[in-house]
Amino acid sequence: MLHHLQNESVDQFKKRMEIVSLIDPGFWTRFGVHYGLFVGALQSNATSGQLGYWFEKGALSLNKFIGCFAMTELGHGSNVPGLETTATFDEASDQFVIHTPTLTATKWWIGGAAHSATHAAVFAQLIVKGKRYGTKCFVVPLRDPKTYNLLPGVNIGDIGKKMGRDGIDNGWIQFTHVRIPRGYMLQKHTKVSRTGDVKEPKLQQLTYGALLQGRVTMVADSGHVSKKALTIAIRYAAVRRQFASSNANGVETKLLDYPIHQRRLMPLLAQTFAMLFTGTEMTAMYNYMMSRLDSAKEGDKDLDEVIEMLKETHSTSAGLKAFCTWNCLSTIEACRQACGGHGYSAYTGLASMYQDFAVQCTWEGDNTILTLQLGRYLISSYREALKGKKLSPGVGYLNNLHSLIGRRCKVSNLDDILSFDVIAEGWQVVCAHVVKNAGSEFEECLKRGLNVDDAYEQCSQSRLYAAKLHSFNYLFNRFADAVRKLSGNLYAVLKTVCLLYGLYTIEENAGAFLQYEYFTPAQIEFVRMSVNDLCRQVRDQAIPLVDSFNLSDYAINSPLGRKDGNVYVHYFEQVKRSNPQGEHPYFDRLIKPLIHKQSNEDDYEEELAGLEEEEEEEE
Amino acid sequence: MLHHLQNESVDQFKKRMEIVSLIDPGFWTRFGVHYGLFVGALQSNATSGQLGYWFEKGALSLNKFIGCFAMTELGHGSNVPGLETTATFDEASDQFVIHTPTLTATKWWIGGAAHSATHAAVFAQLIVKGKRYGTKCFVVPLRDPKTYNLLPGVNIGDIGKKMGRDGIDNGWIQFTHVRIPRGYMLQKHTKVSRTGDVKEPKLQQLTYGALLQGRVTMVADSGHVSKKALTIAIRYAAVRRQFASSNANGVETKLLDYPIHQRRLMPLLAQTFAMLFTGTEMTAMYNYMMSRLDSAKEGDKDLDEVIEMLKETHSTSAGLKAFCTWNCLSTIEACRQACGGHGYSAYTGLASMYQDFAVQCTWEGDNTILTLQLGRYLISSYREALKGKKLSPGVGYLNNLHSLIGRRCKVSNLDDILSFDVIAEGWQVVCAHVVKNAGSEFEECLKRGLNVDDAYEQCSQSRLYAAKLHSFNYLFNRFADAVRKLSGNLYAVLKTVCLLYGLYTIEENAGAFLQYEYFTPAQIEFVRMSVNDLCRQVRDQAIPLVDSFNLSDYAINSPLGRKDGNVYVHYFEQVKRSNPQGEHPYFDRLIKPLIHKQSNEDDYEEELAGLEEEEEEEE
Repeated sequence: MLHHLQNESVDQFKKRMEIVSLIDPGFWTRFGVHYGLFVGALQSNATSGQLGYWFEKGALSLNKFIGCFAMTELGHGSNVPGLETTATFDEASDQFVIHTPTLTATKWWIGGAAHSATHAAVFAQLIVKGKRYGTKCFVVPLRDPKTYNLLPGVNIGDIGKKMGRDGIDNGWIQFTHVRIPRGYMLQKHTKVSRTGDVKEPKLQQLTYGALLQGRVTMVADSGHVSKKALTIAIRYAAVRRQFASSNANGVETKLLDYPIHQRRLMPLLAQTFAMLFTGTEMTAMYNYMMSRLDSAKEGDKDLDEVIEMLKETHSTSAGLKAFCTWNCLSTIEACRQACGGHGYSAYTGLASMYQDFAVQCTWEGDNTILTLQLGRYLISSYREALKGKKLSPGVGYLNNLHSLIGRRCKVSNLDDILSFDVIAEGWQVVCAHVVKNAGSEFEECLKRGLNVDDAYEQCSQSRLYAAKLHSFNYLFNRFADAVRKLSGNLYAVLKTVCLLYGLYTIEENAGAFLQYEYFTPAQIEFVRMSVNDLCRQVRDQAIPLVDSFNLSDYAINSPLGRKDGNVYVHYFEQVKRSNPQGEHPYFDRLIKPLIHKQSNEDDYEEELAGLEEEEEEEE
Repeated sequence: MLHHLQNESVDQFKKRMEIVSLIDPGFWTRFGVHYGLFVGALQSNATSGQLGYWFEKGALSLNKFIGCFAMTELGHGSNVPGLETTATFDEASDQFVIHTPTLTATKWWIGGAAHSATHAAVFAQLIVKGKRYGTKCFVVPLRDPKTYNLLPGVNIGDIGKKMGRDGIDNGWIQFTHVRIPRGYMLQKHTKVSRTGDVKEPKLQQLTYGALLQGRVTMVADSGHVSKKALTIAIRYAAVRRQFASSNANGVETKLLDYPIHQRRLMPLLAQTFAMLFTGTEMTAMYNYMMSRLDSAKEGDKDLDEVIEMLKETHSTSAGLKAFCTWNCLSTIEACRQACGGHGYSAYTGLASMYQDFAVQCTWEGDNTILTLQLGRYLISSYREALKGKKLSPGVGYLNNLHSLIGRRCKVSNLDDILSFDVIAEGWQVVCAHVVKNAGSEFEECLKRGLNVDDAYEQCSQSRLYAAKLHSFNYLFNRFADAVRKLSGNLYAVLKTVCLLYGLYTIEENAGAFLQYEYFTPAQIEFVRMSVNDLCRQVRDQAIPLVDSFNLSDYAINSPLGRKDGNVYVHYFEQVKRSNPQGEHPYFDRLIKPLIHKQSNEDDYEEELAGLEEEEEEEE
């Protein structure tokens, strides 16, 4: 991997990592902890001199150097400003003293810390001359790179077995008055001088951009992992037969031909495309924002615009990270269940996929907290729109509240609902309503005398609901935008997939569409029936669509998802290869004492004779 | 366990097993495979003479005997009549020949087969004089109980690693013309004589009762496992603090005091009570039905009534098994996510709980197929009701279709919605609508010329939807019935919990309540707000409610769920105990070659000196 890293373009290497993450998420994490988190922390927090220094010391080439990212603590996760670890400036020695003052301040979950890392990017409370300046980042050496003995004052252990991703060694770290040079504090933003003068950045916001990289990646990653799960479940469903249909001379029906099985998998296939197109769009939005941000300086005349972009990227990526990782986790589980009993076998690959993926709902921001961040952004955008401000494109519909609130679907034929424009309008109308409701609830709370933070807490359920619907709306529109650019057969196929996604999400959220009366009950009933039809249509393209993901048998690593469809032979071979027949591991030790505890010692042949007689008597 | 089994009443032993299943699901399965499935197969399929014979041979006392239950095959799960294994009667020798004719006929997933069982209850196609009589049950010896060598013609292997429950040794079995005495076919229902005359039972239905035991148990079990998950998540939420509230002098707020965290856990707590009360009711219904069934004979004048009871028990338990195991699995995952990063640690217990429980959505009937069975029963009940037949209590509301269809909620004040009667009526109205829709769709299919089976397939999504809402309705009513019998403080507390359950399920299914216009949009908005209020009210009782489950720290086995609330100390101790600090397992082999591959061999102290100088230059 180092060879590739050093000899490929960044784009090519990123593509490589996407595939690696599908094949071995644990290894990908191991790699990502150093190159994503540790190096990322340097890039966003170090001065250019410091960055050069650490790169020269081996941080980029892994020369006597592996980094880890020590942010979370035993008692502190999402609340980074609440971290307890301290970094106290000692002017006499020109050093920082890194210290773990309590059990709950123990650095926890630190990937790579248990056995691999020589250095950590430690987030700690900066204390200078008795004053606290909040959480900053410090590079702290952990181990002698020759012997891997822990350095004085550093105590590290393995946090042990996890639900999944055991390929990465997560550890805990405690510091006992560990001294580091002043220059090990990363001082791109906040600076501490030799004499203990602290200079803080004017625009704190500008420092957050790089932190968004992880969650932006996870939108696309949710699409990629869903592709793998669906390839397995859909290929299996095209091979597995169950129950004879009445007109097929006893040949059992393929799972994929059952309307209910189409209902289980086709909407998830459609959703995967939505996440993939949205992931591409989100990445482009992030890259553009970062390029603007990198060149932005205080006093620039377009600084407000850059900050608006940062806010939109921050909150959109928060909501999408949350809903896409949730969607992906549910997709994996639905695919696992759709494989019946074999889905529970480790060799099918879906169990470990679930176990490895589950952490994505928590790391880089707990999903619920992220949805609330998006909800908060939606409420503040709503309030700004009321004041006449022109909003960013993603929330632009809030500038049209007046025309959206109360609008109903005006189609003359039910069939006209099968249109991107109607679906998109419906989502806008519904989102306008739920954001307005959340905003009104928030303002009610303010009127009742709550402060801003408490008011936001009180309406958190409405924030979450608004964020959920807004994210579905966003996903549909990115999918539809992408499809609109296509033509020919590709357009025809993906249009159907996109319509399925749109109507499926409406069906799933029928309560909102009825509550705000965009659709009538009869129209919703039509939506329900159309989802059935569209599932059947997408089923006809399901195998080509899955083949288009172009994941090799090696990447899929599941006999149920084999491209040749020879499911049972491969499965049986894998089970036999992994479990050679032979001795019974616990017969002598456990089974024998249990079943031979009684005195009766008739031999087996006599027993057989016994039954024959008894049977004769019975008849 | 054998001691307890032989010295306790059945009821007491069942209670013991409930607790064992919470503590060690793998062991519980190991026990259940023999005593539940194998002995259960004997009890429901053996003549009394055969039963006595096998008990005397050691099947009850585990004397040189452990049984397993060999039904599913590599290529066949839910479709039992489609099993491929054959049992051909050889008149010359008065024996059956058990044979695996194809790879897909390999018995698969057979718990206990890999290393433990001496005998299997094998389900195979009975063939006599060239004629097939369908799937029957045969006892087939697998191993010599003294040596555990496989008997001639028997080939067995371990199916290996699973998502969870690795405490049970699931295996695969292939038979090559294995001969067993005729008397080893269990002949309570179908009988084969010495001369090959086959006598089949007139009332095939009466043979199914015992098969329902497992799924009935799983309704209550879903409640029990949910109790354990919620005890962990709720106790942790009462200890974990995160983010400072503005008016608390920097002390962080307990998770449990956040409205959004209440929203995550309180409805699931309410749902757990619904499943527990329903489980009790379901068990009583099953036991009564079985007592009637056991004494029922062909020609009895109350036979029709018994068969009606069997049908209702069959379909109700099918739907409840499906929705309760799904609910429980979601509850475990929600609890795991509610514990943040620590939920991903193996020591929290929620990861393995998910992995162990997940199989319950598949075994004893795949959940989706079970919901369709309930859906089919609902449609046929609907059609019978139209013909004027008086239905069983669980579907009795279908006898009142005329008054339910189109009925709206008639409360003068919104607050009146907070009533068991209104919620119950709402569920009846909605269920009446969705069952009627499914029934009409089915009849449309018949009119279009489809046969009955194909018509049912075509409307399977409507069947599933009807089954889902019917099951929610059923759960709410069992909960409300139980609460109505209470008084005093207990009534007051559980009434709130039950109202939360009722309104939460309405909110979750708001689309249906609006589509059939039982509630207006304004009323649904009131329901949404009331769920917030009720979550807050139930939060005040959450710790006592969880304590009332009375699960010991030993049973919970999670530092996050400790009764003493000393979460972090116990967690850290468990991590250290399980992962002693010491040598690095792969430093010499992997890390050293990686990070010392370059020629530069400066020692560590020099590097530290290097930075100091560089830093000086920089400043």
